[in-house]
Amino acid sequence: MRHHRASLGLHPLAPVHDQHAQDGQQDLFWSRVRTTLREPFAEFWGVIIMILFGNGSVAQVLLSTGQAQGAPGGNGFGIWALGVMLGIYVAGDSGAYLNPAITFSNCLYRQLPWRRFPTYFIAQLLGGMVGSLIVYANYISAIDHYEGGHGIRTVPPATQATAGIFATYPQPFVTKASQFFSEFIASTILMFVIFALKDEANMGLAKSAHFFPLMLFFLIFGIGACFGWETGYAINFVRDFSPRLISYGLGYGKEVWSAGGYYFWVSKKSPSGIPMVAPWLGCMFGGFLYDVFIYTGKSPINSPYMGLSHLFHPRQEIRRKIEAEKELHMV
Amino acid sequence: MRHHRASLGLHPLAPVHDQHAQDGQQDLFWSRVRTTLREPFAEFWGVIIMILFGNGSVAQVLLSTGQAQGAPGGNGFGIWALGVMLGIYVAGDSGAYLNPAITFSNCLYRQLPWRRFPTYFIAQLLGGMVGSLIVYANYISAIDHYEGGHGIRTVPPATQATAGIFATYPQPFVTKASQFFSEFIASTILMFVIFALKDEANMGLAKSAHFFPLMLFFLIFGIGACFGWETGYAINFVRDFSPRLISYGLGYGKEVWSAGGYYFWVSKKSPSGIPMVAPWLGCMFGGFLYDVFIYTGKSPINSPYMGLSHLFHPRQEIRRKIEAEKELHMV
Amino acid sequence: MRHHRASLGLHPLAPVHDQHAQDGQQDLFWSRVRTTLREPFAEFWGVIIMILFGNGSVAQVLLSTGQAQGAPGGNGFGIWALGVMLGIYVAGDSGAYLNPAITFSNCLYRQLPWRRFPTYFIAQLLGGMVGSLIVYANYISAIDHYEGGHGIRTVPPATQATAGIFATYPQPFVTKASQFFSEFIASTILMFVIFALKDEANMGLAKSAHFFPLMLFFLIFGIGACFGWETGYAINFVRDFSPRLISYGLGYGKEVWSAGGYYFWVSKKSPSGIPMVAPWLGCMFGGFLYDVFIYTGKSPINSPYMGLSHLFHPRQEIRRKIEAEKELHMV
Amino acid sequence: MRHHRASLGLHPLAPVHDQHAQDGQQDLFWSRVRTTLREPFAEFWGVIIMILFGNGSVAQVLLSTGQAQGAPGGNGFGIWALGVMLGIYVAGDSGAYLNPAITFSNCLYRQLPWRRFPTYFIAQLLGGMVGSLIVYANYISAIDHYEGGHGIRTVPPATQATAGIFATYPQPFVTKASQFFSEFIASTILMFVIFALKDEANMGLAKSAHFFPLMLFFLIFGIGACFGWETGYAINFVRDFSPRLISYGLGYGKEVWSAGGYYFWVSKKSPSGIPMVAPWLGCMFGGFLYDVFIYTGKSPINSPYMGLSHLFHPRQEIRRKIEAEKELHMV
Repeated sequence: MRHHRASLGLHPLAPVHDQHAQDGQQDLFWSRVRTTLREPFAEFWGVIIMILFGNGSVAQVLLSTGQAQGAPGGNGFGIWALGVMLGIYVAGDSGAYLNPAITFSNCLYRQLPWRRFPTYFIAQLLGGMVGSLIVYANYISAIDHYEGGHGIRTVPPATQATAGIFATYPQPFVTKASQFFSEFIASTILMFVIFALKDEANMGLAKSAHFFPLMLFFLIFGIGACFGWETGYAINFVRDFSPRLISYGLGYGKEVWSAGGYYFWVSKKSPSGIPMVAPWLGCMFGGFLYDVFIYTGKSPINSPYMGLSHLFHPRQEIRRKIEAEKELHMV
Repeated sequence: MRHHRASLGLHPLAPVHDQHAQDGQQDLFWSRVRTTLREPFAEFWGVIIMILFGNGSVAQVLLSTGQAQGAPGGNGFGIWALGVMLGIYVAGDSGAYLNPAITFSNCLYRQLPWRRFPTYFIAQLLGGMVGSLIVYANYISAIDHYEGGHGIRTVPPATQATAGIFATYPQPFVTKASQFFSEFIASTILMFVIFALKDEANMGLAKSAHFFPLMLFFLIFGIGACFGWETGYAINFVRDFSPRLISYGLGYGKEVWSAGGYYFWVSKKSPSGIPMVAPWLGCMFGGFLYDVFIYTGKSPINSPYMGLSHLFHPRQEIRRKIEAEKELHMV
Repeated sequence: MRHHRASLGLHPLAPVHDQHAQDGQQDLFWSRVRTTLREPFAEFWGVIIMILFGNGSVAQVLLSTGQAQGAPGGNGFGIWALGVMLGIYVAGDSGAYLNPAITFSNCLYRQLPWRRFPTYFIAQLLGGMVGSLIVYANYISAIDHYEGGHGIRTVPPATQATAGIFATYPQPFVTKASQFFSEFIASTILMFVIFALKDEANMGLAKSAHFFPLMLFFLIFGIGACFGWETGYAINFVRDFSPRLISYGLGYGKEVWSAGGYYFWVSKKSPSGIPMVAPWLGCMFGGFLYDVFIYTGKSPINSPYMGLSHLFHPRQEIRRKIEAEKELHMV
Repeated sequence: MRHHRASLGLHPLAPVHDQHAQDGQQDLFWSRVRTTLREPFAEFWGVIIMILFGNGSVAQVLLSTGQAQGAPGGNGFGIWALGVMLGIYVAGDSGAYLNPAITFSNCLYRQLPWRRFPTYFIAQLLGGMVGSLIVYANYISAIDHYEGGHGIRTVPPATQATAGIFATYPQPFVTKASQFFSEFIASTILMFVIFALKDEANMGLAKSAHFFPLMLFFLIFGIGACFGWETGYAINFVRDFSPRLISYGLGYGKEVWSAGGYYFWVSKKSPSGIPMVAPWLGCMFGGFLYDVFIYTGKSPINSPYMGLSHLFHPRQEIRRKIEAEKELHMV
């Protein structure tokens, strides 16, 4: 099992509660599978929960537009935040990143081994797909009703478009540069505040890990309320790409990639690719700002030449890192 | 007293605070009754509080429709969630299930003895009835005013129908299959996330039992906001059946059972029975998913053949269980 | 100082933080006054904060009716709840009752000495007056603007009435019996849930005193959202009477007492007096229900004949009580 | 480094987590800069976060006015509160004042050395400027679209004015006296409740520093909902002045200073200067009230002649203070 976990880039020892680990159930085949895939399962289900609430609430608000009694459940923006919060509780054992750009920043600034990134990323991507499929399955007859016929599926700016349930589409009059800036700054804030919330050395006011999920609720809600209107605030590759892919597969047509002047895709006509690129850069920049101005712990920023010396001696650096990790029994 | 409690399927020793138990009041007749019925009383009052807030808020929003100043209190969806949260605080001593499908899943996956189920179930059913009766008593004159005359009581889709205060009625254009799926998936999420919140081995982020009621608030609110529109999200047999029965008794007519194409009832014409069946199946499935993919503790899923071997040796299994419970002084 | 405190019915020793008590500042005249009046000051300021937020939010919503941009701050119902929560934080040293009916129930069921009641009550009454005066001072020019002229002050159902900023006025079509029931049941729920939240023996889920103020927020919000529309939910004598008296003094006319068919006052024509009477009875009943069905600690309900035997030997009972309190140094 | 910190009025020893302080990174130039400027950086970034959410939400709500789908994110009032809460988490190491009037009151009543005030003030001012610049950069194309052309920038009461994104502008019909009173009372409540929340000797209900940021959310939200409509509730000099200055620099014209009858500025025509003056006086008064009526700890109010004796022997007092601070190694 250690071998399988190591080959997935995971820590050889799975994070299993001591008492449970001694119950002898590890002899069962499936228990071993679950222990081996502990962190990917956690990310997978955490993202599913996030997408179920996020896409589900957009679906409900959109599909009930114009009804006399409206849909139960407010305007749906806070529900993305709620989904993230509950997803964090579900994905407790993996770090609960739920966003590959945040995993990425943790590799870059917080010593999360890079070799874990691919496994986490794939788990997150699959979670986004499964979550949006369930939402589609749930609302299929209501989508038929709203779009005006069985199997009709359209993309904004079509008047009865329902593709917005799955992925983000920008406001038409906002320039590409503003769209990019909006995604970038939203992702920057996201990473900056998460690092602040996770920084136990940022004292002054006692922090409590118990409050982290609740504060993420407020943070995501606030980002949506302040920087969410221009682009629909993806700020997360798997939140946008996975449901977009699913919506493509479900028959919404090629417009899911090209709508909004190739908002998503990097095309020759208009090389934007905003929700695909901006979250990574924003999260990197947000982590950079926090570490430059506030963080006092271990970080490349707090090492000579801000860690960039590693770029000139990559092999040496990698060897050094692996040795350090071996000492910590991380390999 | 031990005998009476055992005959109700309860643990012989009631969960009474040590200091209180030594105060000598147990000589009083009523104190002994209260101690004997500790858990059923807790569930009974917890469900009453839940229904008071849930049905009460729907009543207030509906009955004030079209008024210039509207009703104080938002749109009433979050209030179901609020009622569940406060009900959990009230029903602390029984486990605060407030939902027979959740009690059921705890019997199935978390070693809650099956013999407790009937007592809990009856207490929950009665709580749902008493709660909805109080709401009716409170709004009787406003219902008369809204329905357009003393004693007029109608069921959706009648224009001034007030039966929706009590039980759930589906959107007319949603297919039966979609209605069932909506209830099923909502119940699945409910159970899945509750098991995540209760799983102390799901570490990563420190969990706190103090946050459980607050998180249930967000969970129920979120489920309503994402999967509540198509059917009104019963996700709880006693939340739907008990008030529906009361509304039948109060003169809303047989339509409370047949409305929405026999949405509630299992009839020959259209065997749906959605809010009667789907919550149980959904909660079972949600618990199953959590235990398969994440839970590492004691569960049938974590035993050989996922515990199904018991099906082939039921007697032997029951004997074994009772002996184990005797050792733990649970009988 | 002990003497002065005892003559006010307070515990001879004021609840002052140990470290502070040794700072020697108790030689100053005002410090001694503050220590002597510790609990009344706490209740006084707690009620002021509650009324500032409660009446202030109603004022803001009402006075901005019909404006293009509306008033910042939602619909104002939740703000009463918010005011209660912050008032509890302010009034930490007195028990933070903020409501004489709750003080009353604590005397009745929780051994709070009766002799404290008058001092608390007066402090609460004065707090309600000062709080509503500040709100009036803040909105005087906006009230002039809304009512249509300097010094015009009217009471519902006048179309531009602003008396509703201060006290509650019922829906016109609701019968007196329903109004009474609404206030009664809302107060019952209030007391029942507060006793549940304060009952440390109601285990099951770990309770935390840290969550008490937040849960009161949800509780008051929920009561407003479920049982607040018919009468405006006073559920608190000083929340209704004190601002009503102030509004009378400010020139709203005798209608503040007689509006809504003598809703407030006990007149010969229509003896209702609903917000004056129902909160006391409701809180008494809510405490009674909690103690009968759930509470296992010391309470008259948990003594022979439910404590009613005291009614037949009052002198003997009072002597016994005072002796017990002397032993606990409470006199 | 100690010298540099002392010359900025800061405590010679920066608040750095013990473990981090021993990591040897203090040899790096930038790490030393960051440690030297620890508190100003904290206030700077805390205010940026507050302004990003606050101004950002107003921008989003305003700029999406009249759109069919509206802007994601409610009405924007609660988001100021959310920004304050997250800013507090970011600025943990400086005390998280985020408001110079609160820093001022802490100098006056809570022994924060006066010499820290200028550094904190400048950091807060700059944070307000940077934050509002980022919001402008994010919404520049949407502002062009809303104002009706590239580079058009107008101030209320112009119909398509967007200056309200940055600073506060009062309701036109409210008198100057009422505007002043509204700002004053809002700031009084702010300081009074903050001192209550921070007063560990205000017992009764257990307080938890963990809840402080969440309660500030409710407090700021409540103040906006109750006393925010007449003036837009600045209650914070840097929240109003810094973005106003930025909006002036961005071409909104002199009206940003003169609008609303010289609401902001102290001019000869109409010497109001409300958001510039009222927050300081209000916070001073709120702190005064709390210390007079409730606070039992060290405060000028709890010293002879309420600390005013110092006014008559200023030199002697300053010498005494510095000596005391030297003993505590604060200089």
